[in-house]
Amino acid sequence: MSSSLDRIRIVLVEPAGALNIGSIARVMKNMGLTQLVIVNPQCEVYGEEATRMAVHAIDLLEKARIVPDLPTALQGCTRVIATTARDRAIPTQLETPRQVLPWLVENDESTALVFGREDSGLTNAELNYAGRYLRIPVGSEYSSLNLAQAVGVCAYELQMCMSNIDPDLPNVRSQIPQQLDIAPVELVEGYYQQLETLLLEIGYLFPHTAPHRMEKLRRLYNRSQLSPNEVALLRGILSQVRWALNTLAPQIGKRS
Amino acid sequence: MSSSLDRIRIVLVEPAGALNIGSIARVMKNMGLTQLVIVNPQCEVYGEEATRMAVHAIDLLEKARIVPDLPTALQGCTRVIATTARDRAIPTQLETPRQVLPWLVENDESTALVFGREDSGLTNAELNYAGRYLRIPVGSEYSSLNLAQAVGVCAYELQMCMSNIDPDLPNVRSQIPQQLDIAPVELVEGYYQQLETLLLEIGYLFPHTAPHRMEKLRRLYNRSQLSPNEVALLRGILSQVRWALNTLAPQIGKRS
Repeated sequence: MSSSLDRIRIVLVEPAGALNIGSIARVMKNMGLTQLVIVNPQCEVYGEEATRMAVHAIDLLEKARIVPDLPTALQGCTRVIATTARDRAIPTQLETPRQVLPWLVENDESTALVFGREDSGLTNAELNYAGRYLRIPVGSEYSSLNLAQAVGVCAYELQMCMSNIDPDLPNVRSQIPQQLDIAPVELVEGYYQQLETLLLEIGYLFPHTAPHRMEKLRRLYNRSQLSPNEVALLRGILSQVRWALNTLAPQIGKRS
Repeated sequence: MSSSLDRIRIVLVEPAGALNIGSIARVMKNMGLTQLVIVNPQCEVYGEEATRMAVHAIDLLEKARIVPDLPTALQGCTRVIATTARDRAIPTQLETPRQVLPWLVENDESTALVFGREDSGLTNAELNYAGRYLRIPVGSEYSSLNLAQAVGVCAYELQMCMSNIDPDLPNVRSQIPQQLDIAPVELVEGYYQQLETLLLEIGYLFPHTAPHRMEKLRRLYNRSQLSPNEVALLRGILSQVRWALNTLAPQIGKRS
């Protein structure tokens, strides 16, 4: 029987600890998660340490997809949550697992929960692929959670979302307005690329300011969870601006 | 500064995995738990494997109490919860961490949360010391959780209890930065007006299509709850497009 948890990808970006990878496979299988995607692993995924910790989840480890970069890992996903321990990096709300994870369970499409490197987490560029941000609450003294523990806590919360065994839980699903049709990451990425090209061309961005400003724009649009129609609408505006510049300002056309 | 979590003992009965003990020390310290009690350990508590996993929680490992049996570990405790993966052994209700753990936090006396052996859990005799019983919900296929993961999930739930109970403690709420200030309606309206004017000018909108399309754009931007800075960013882009058209396409400038 396929459950909603089958549609949730657990994405690890450049993990360096083989013990962690094995532990993660085990706790994923414990909690009913099946899709493990590993971006550019920095350790052995199928070696002795990982299989030792995976125990009866070696099948999940063997089925894990290894991909070169995060965009590849996220292809086809309509909802992406990034985990972070930092608050300064993100000028937006950080949510607890309990607040944000129902968002992955409640729809019928592919979704992803992304975890960063053991030592340095996710880069700003990687964080920008996400629509929402998760931080596991910790005590103040020692805040750096082990990667496998972080995945474990989230896997547990996802399992709790699935099983309606806790009558005290507010029904989070019904609190979140349904957005019917969300564009997959690669479609939105096409818009960002077109936007950046145009903004460079008209002198709003310069190569040295582009990453920082684009980051702000990505967050703004990611928050609103664009539909495919909206992406087409926004791209249509850019094309029309481009047309106006081409037709009416041939100088710019030549410069590009 | 002493929190209720200081009064909760995490009791491990005959653990055999040194990696587990190290991981447990780390996640306890992460979550603000301080009292680790180990009953008759079957592995090295202070060896290379445990300290490797403890990372910055070696102090907690060094303070761990080693005792010969469970009654010694529980001396002075008024509330004891035992964890189990089995339901047959217990002639009483099994509760989820979320249901049962507030019971340990809400009083002012010493309490304990007891975890059994990695392979065989707690004996019936040991289970009998507890007043309530906890089972972590899992998917059906592979139900055996790693010991450190089980402690991690419970430590997380205890931290979540604390966050809810004592508003003066540094808790999850104060750790979460508030959503950036949201721009007032009139500020966002200024952006919509500027956008509509430009889109009419470049021929993307026509007077008869403008209301319908602008409605779609308004919904898209309203969903993301723009901050004043973001409104300024978006208006800056429009101004730059206008500048490019004015400077490089004087025909458009004249037409407007």
